[in-house]
Amino acid sequence: MEAAQAMAQGIRQADPDADIRLLPMADGGEGTAQALADATGGQMRRTIAHDPLGRPVAARYAMLGDGTTAVAETAEASGLALLAPDERNPLTATSYGTGELIKAALDAGATTIIVGLGGSATNDAGAGILKALGARLLDAAGHDLEPGGAALADLATIDVSGLDSRLDDVTIIAACDVTNPLTGPNGASAVFGPQKGASADDVALLDHALTRFAEVAGRQLGMDVAALPGGGAAGGIGAALLTFLHAEFKPGVDLVIDRAGLDEAVQWADVVFTGEGSIDFQTKFGKTPAGVAKTAKRYGKPVIAVAGHIGDGIEELHAIGIDAVFGIAPGAADLDTLLHDAAANVARTAGQITRLLKLTR
Amino acid sequence: MEAAQAMAQGIRQADPDADIRLLPMADGGEGTAQALADATGGQMRRTIAHDPLGRPVAARYAMLGDGTTAVAETAEASGLALLAPDERNPLTATSYGTGELIKAALDAGATTIIVGLGGSATNDAGAGILKALGARLLDAAGHDLEPGGAALADLATIDVSGLDSRLDDVTIIAACDVTNPLTGPNGASAVFGPQKGASADDVALLDHALTRFAEVAGRQLGMDVAALPGGGAAGGIGAALLTFLHAEFKPGVDLVIDRAGLDEAVQWADVVFTGEGSIDFQTKFGKTPAGVAKTAKRYGKPVIAVAGHIGDGIEELHAIGIDAVFGIAPGAADLDTLLHDAAANVARTAGQITRLLKLTR
Repeated sequence: MEAAQAMAQGIRQADPDADIRLLPMADGGEGTAQALADATGGQMRRTIAHDPLGRPVAARYAMLGDGTTAVAETAEASGLALLAPDERNPLTATSYGTGELIKAALDAGATTIIVGLGGSATNDAGAGILKALGARLLDAAGHDLEPGGAALADLATIDVSGLDSRLDDVTIIAACDVTNPLTGPNGASAVFGPQKGASADDVALLDHALTRFAEVAGRQLGMDVAALPGGGAAGGIGAALLTFLHAEFKPGVDLVIDRAGLDEAVQWADVVFTGEGSIDFQTKFGKTPAGVAKTAKRYGKPVIAVAGHIGDGIEELHAIGIDAVFGIAPGAADLDTLLHDAAANVARTAGQITRLLKLTR
Repeated sequence: MEAAQAMAQGIRQADPDADIRLLPMADGGEGTAQALADATGGQMRRTIAHDPLGRPVAARYAMLGDGTTAVAETAEASGLALLAPDERNPLTATSYGTGELIKAALDAGATTIIVGLGGSATNDAGAGILKALGARLLDAAGHDLEPGGAALADLATIDVSGLDSRLDDVTIIAACDVTNPLTGPNGASAVFGPQKGASADDVALLDHALTRFAEVAGRQLGMDVAALPGGGAAGGIGAALLTFLHAEFKPGVDLVIDRAGLDEAVQWADVVFTGEGSIDFQTKFGKTPAGVAKTAKRYGKPVIAVAGHIGDGIEELHAIGIDAVFGIAPGAADLDTLLHDAAANVARTAGQITRLLKLTR
């Protein structure tokens, strides 16, 4: 929203008569709940949940303008950003807090709950979420497992008899671009474990434990849990959502685009501005500006992106409908300075682009 | 030329059919000789001159495409950039080398000599230039003065009988935006002395010495030398050129624009790209992009500027005909990195601007 407002300010300065509609976007990652709340006239709500180490943390989720759709992000209560570097430990980190957020959404009357996957500190196959929602994860002796992914090596039964019954009448949608499976060389532990602090030994141990989860869950549900595409998202939270919570998966940016009404807005617009902190050739892989461009190009509308950082290969973005990309940095500056001046730099750049567009009209 | 070539590369990548003419510009400061040589099909020539401390230095001047106009910059043999910080001493620094460059141009057959004023380390009222061209600066006892501005306090006579007679048939043009007088609170010593290493005491001493130069020269020529606008340019070189060398003064950018044929080129063009290392509201005061814009606006052509650094108040530039300004920095980076990547960044930015212009055509 801040970026959109800065763009609008710059555009208006260059063209006081411009009609502008702000539609903050996100790609399912951090900021998705806020963006959807802003776009639909909803609001952010606060609750107390537990972080990956079990400490209380103030966490937020969105209730959208329709009053029935909630948006919870895994990063909010189970995120890596909540931990100091030396607190990172995917062996014991739990997704319990994300389960609490989902429960808070249920309590608030949500009938559709969007879960934004990404930025998690956990590698527990969503075991914490299941527990927070009333399931029990038991070892062969019938004792509750300790929190975290490593403990899943001793999993014998998942007792879902206590699972919150409201979930039967609720649609869970996972906003997720990841198609990695739960286990194996492309699985949660191997691919995402290291960035959460897992050593090579930890990865092996966690992959073994998550394989156990897949076996137990698969046996109970009669499905191949280990192979589900997206099961490896967010340290295996994908697998918990896909199985016991019957979630459907959707690429984050598509989900936001649908919910925010971008299709209608780009039909209305003559020119579409978008942006991202960093833009390079990888932007075409499901990032916000790529989704915006895809939608805008359905109606042949020009798409101009601004970025705090421009990396390699932006010419590849022209092919997917981003007509031009401009950096906002005014010169030599460190990241802190650029972050501090971001709004002014976005406004200036959007204004200059607008002047250029007016030139030739 | 490098910047122009980078722009052309970016434009061509975005629009392979673009017809492009490169016209490297300058504002009378560093690079003016090279720019005019490039623009007119001339060449740079080398000679050996003496730097502000009297050391030999390889110095260059331009012989333009017409074969009769030379361009010498004071920075080349008398420049501050030739000295280490602890070598700066405007009391003794001499403009002799610039006189040698003018002499070299005479030897090469030049009938018009453009002297680009700026960047000098000297504060000697151009005494060194006069000496290099055959004049003698004598004290009351008839002895030659020591080099530098301080010695002018003892000036009694300027003997011009030995002044190179070829100067009678040559037009000297000073490329200069400065209108400061030779002496006084707005004079060479007070305004430009400190940046050349003058202390407050040095400034007083130099102003006194240059006042003496003005008195002696004024008495011999029957004019008020101290009051001549521009006499204070380049440590008083302006005064020497205006008096004994009968120079005419012209704003640097106007001079380059005339000589380079910009007027004809902007009539031909649909869009004019320009640029400068740093652009801010001060750019309107006679800097290259301002001159380019003034010329282009005579024919209603759009002008787009790119800059390594964008400072405050660029909206003031729109009023003088610079339609849009874009920074080339791709994100957080220090100056060394930006200088290293300048060509690529200019090309990328010019290409994206071209894409934007094509969008709406």
